[in-house]
Amino acid sequence: MSDTIKYLLDEQDLPKSWYNINADLPVPLDPVLHPGTKEPITPDDLAPIFPRAVIEQEMSAEREIEIPGPVRDVLRQWRPSPLFRARRLERALGTPARIYYKYEGVSPAGSHKPNTAIPQAFYNKEEGVKRITTETGAGQWGSSLALAGNFFGLEIIVFMVKVSYFQKPYRRAFMEAFGAQCIPSPSDQTASGRAILAEHPDSNGSLGIAISEAVEMAVQRDDTKYALGSVLNHVLLHQTVTGQESMKQLEMAGDWPDLVIGCTGGGSNFAGLAFPFLGKQLREGGNIQFIAVEPSACPTLTKGKFAYDFGDTAHLTPLVKMYTLGSSFMPPGFHAGGLRYHGMAPQISHLTKHGYIAPRAYSQLDTFAAGVRFAKAEGIIPAPEANHAVCAALEEAEKCRESGEAKTILFNLCGHGHFDMPAYMDFMAGKLQELTYDESEIAMALSGLPCGFD
Amino acid sequence: MSDTIKYLLDEQDLPKSWYNINADLPVPLDPVLHPGTKEPITPDDLAPIFPRAVIEQEMSAEREIEIPGPVRDVLRQWRPSPLFRARRLERALGTPARIYYKYEGVSPAGSHKPNTAIPQAFYNKEEGVKRITTETGAGQWGSSLALAGNFFGLEIIVFMVKVSYFQKPYRRAFMEAFGAQCIPSPSDQTASGRAILAEHPDSNGSLGIAISEAVEMAVQRDDTKYALGSVLNHVLLHQTVTGQESMKQLEMAGDWPDLVIGCTGGGSNFAGLAFPFLGKQLREGGNIQFIAVEPSACPTLTKGKFAYDFGDTAHLTPLVKMYTLGSSFMPPGFHAGGLRYHGMAPQISHLTKHGYIAPRAYSQLDTFAAGVRFAKAEGIIPAPEANHAVCAALEEAEKCRESGEAKTILFNLCGHGHFDMPAYMDFMAGKLQELTYDESEIAMALSGLPCGFD
Repeated sequence: MSDTIKYLLDEQDLPKSWYNINADLPVPLDPVLHPGTKEPITPDDLAPIFPRAVIEQEMSAEREIEIPGPVRDVLRQWRPSPLFRARRLERALGTPARIYYKYEGVSPAGSHKPNTAIPQAFYNKEEGVKRITTETGAGQWGSSLALAGNFFGLEIIVFMVKVSYFQKPYRRAFMEAFGAQCIPSPSDQTASGRAILAEHPDSNGSLGIAISEAVEMAVQRDDTKYALGSVLNHVLLHQTVTGQESMKQLEMAGDWPDLVIGCTGGGSNFAGLAFPFLGKQLREGGNIQFIAVEPSACPTLTKGKFAYDFGDTAHLTPLVKMYTLGSSFMPPGFHAGGLRYHGMAPQISHLTKHGYIAPRAYSQLDTFAAGVRFAKAEGIIPAPEANHAVCAALEEAEKCRESGEAKTILFNLCGHGHFDMPAYMDFMAGKLQELTYDESEIAMALSGLPCGFD
Repeated sequence: MSDTIKYLLDEQDLPKSWYNINADLPVPLDPVLHPGTKEPITPDDLAPIFPRAVIEQEMSAEREIEIPGPVRDVLRQWRPSPLFRARRLERALGTPARIYYKYEGVSPAGSHKPNTAIPQAFYNKEEGVKRITTETGAGQWGSSLALAGNFFGLEIIVFMVKVSYFQKPYRRAFMEAFGAQCIPSPSDQTASGRAILAEHPDSNGSLGIAISEAVEMAVQRDDTKYALGSVLNHVLLHQTVTGQESMKQLEMAGDWPDLVIGCTGGGSNFAGLAFPFLGKQLREGGNIQFIAVEPSACPTLTKGKFAYDFGDTAHLTPLVKMYTLGSSFMPPGFHAGGLRYHGMAPQISHLTKHGYIAPRAYSQLDTFAAGVRFAKAEGIIPAPEANHAVCAALEEAEKCRESGEAKTILFNLCGHGHFDMPAYMDFMAGKLQELTYDESEIAMALSGLPCGFD
């Protein structure tokens, strides 16, 4: 038998708590700063945009944070998600490596994003919030919050990055089917959007701009909060169900990873898979290599600076110490819309800076070529974001073929590509563009960093 | 806890054999006739288009037919599929009914069709076939055969009904990603296609026409066979993994259905779920009602005649006794492309004629309204075909609300709607058309029946 193997867990193996890597960091994180005073922020500073329970998690140093019962009740519709051993792919590559992928495309929104959308909607509902605003890139996060808002009876308003809004009309339809409102960003609904439009009427938009619009709208209304789909610690820890489940599934397989790989836009799917393994390694030692993969056209970890920066373009958010390309950097309009972000989760940035995570960047064409090879072997068409993780996994498996090493590779297949077929159509027709940034644009964006950089 | 519940089986619960209802029919089926001689066909008559193993299954009277190991090895990547108890939907409807749905959208192609595509590709490969031709409506079958052909190293050529080819471009891209060739039908590649185009240059196409094109191409090449995605007995029995799994899952839930519901185009997803239950009932007695749901714009079971007819438009196939609207009937271009077929599986037709299955028809708008209600409650956007089953399940659950009866309803959610979002976009925008047929067209199509009708 040499076919792909599925490792499933029982429902009682759905994790009962989230893992918070803040408890295990070898060097403390730099504090988050108030954008006005540049003093460390307090929970009260965040109260206008997040519910109290979320703020507590954001600042918590507890290693384990209990998952509320009603959140687990929703998650268990599709969780624990399967872990697959990609035996057909291994055979196709002729590699001695053992390749495992955690498959998050089984969620109703087709990605890992509901793992945090469900708890965020729950906490908002518990605290009497009526409406949540958010941004979305490729639409996976917007779809997931639309779904979660629908389950918990909340109104959802999604600012969708304009280039993705037009590239992925099915995603917008998905959000609307669940009753959410989806607005292309930059829009004329907010001062931040209007300011961008005045200067760049044809702006593609960016996650940084869309965040500004969503935050601005949230702070202006008493019954409205904002939700973020990545970057912040509460999001990262909500995603650790994937890593915790994978640990148990690898135990079932009698295996343990040499490499853990995920794509990184804001960092949540990578962190969700990697942090439970990395935390254990920080506490107990170990030899796992952690590889964060980003697009070479938005090379935050590989070409950015480790510095204080804003999370958004209009500078409405607190200042966080992270790898950044500068908050005014506009990534080109490649299809992995979820990775078009100038910054990176502070925890990932910090652990990269200190050598615990190895970043890597691939071009759009290489990632799509990897995605098609994966699909032909495993039958699943990955989301363009996930293709970045696939690309690194293939490269590592091919290195094993050369060296003869039988490494164990684990990666996060964080979503399926059903809503991204036009990108595959372009790729197969030879029409997909290789996109890159202008060095001078990054230099200019970095020159505007609020606290400079080393 | 009042959230949706998932019932999962272990991999060893994947059925080891398919169930063949021919073994339990209370009245024997009418024979399949050779279109020329009108005598019962022999295995040799079918040899130019199907591999021998498939022909044996088609004609078998054995109750259980073993599933080959290599087929089970592929199926277990996503099987056993989950059975869900739709508690959120029950709550939203305020019904005492217990609603269960078998979810086939977890397959890599997003529907139940790989259940038969995998074994059909396997048997063709075993017998040295190089290439398989087929037809597809909405693209679920074509996608599934593309996937299966890719796994087993077979070239796949898909004639896709023209209206669906343009409605569902993502489906075409899916097939091409797996290396299949997808041709809009009617095409100029075959005599059957050219004949239709000569008379109706703007033809929407139909499954009947696409079948003619695929069969014609297969018989002309020695190394090429044809595969059908529904209607015939070997296809129906390949789908019985869904019903067999559902039986075990309902046992886990401590429940048993009062109603079993599926949508019917050619009949395979309905048969797959219903026949294991119906066969048991035929052998041992029982009170389950079986409801086959079709589009009111293609009302084969509810308005067709039970008569001998061709399976295709160009009259290349054998004659089967079935409910039919006449092989020249062109259903309007509604979005449930998988249900745009003039005929119906002989086994389903026969059991409907003898009162064991109750057919029902719904309009396009009613089925989309049901699909959106289902999605909002359960988080899964159904394929337009599956919306027909959803619509009947909702109607029955609402009857229970009126009567106070706590019936157990089981239906087949045979696929997700990720590739069908434009239809939902039109529905939500109030632009989806109610389509119907012209009574005179059916009368004319029925007047051409080769053996007439009672």
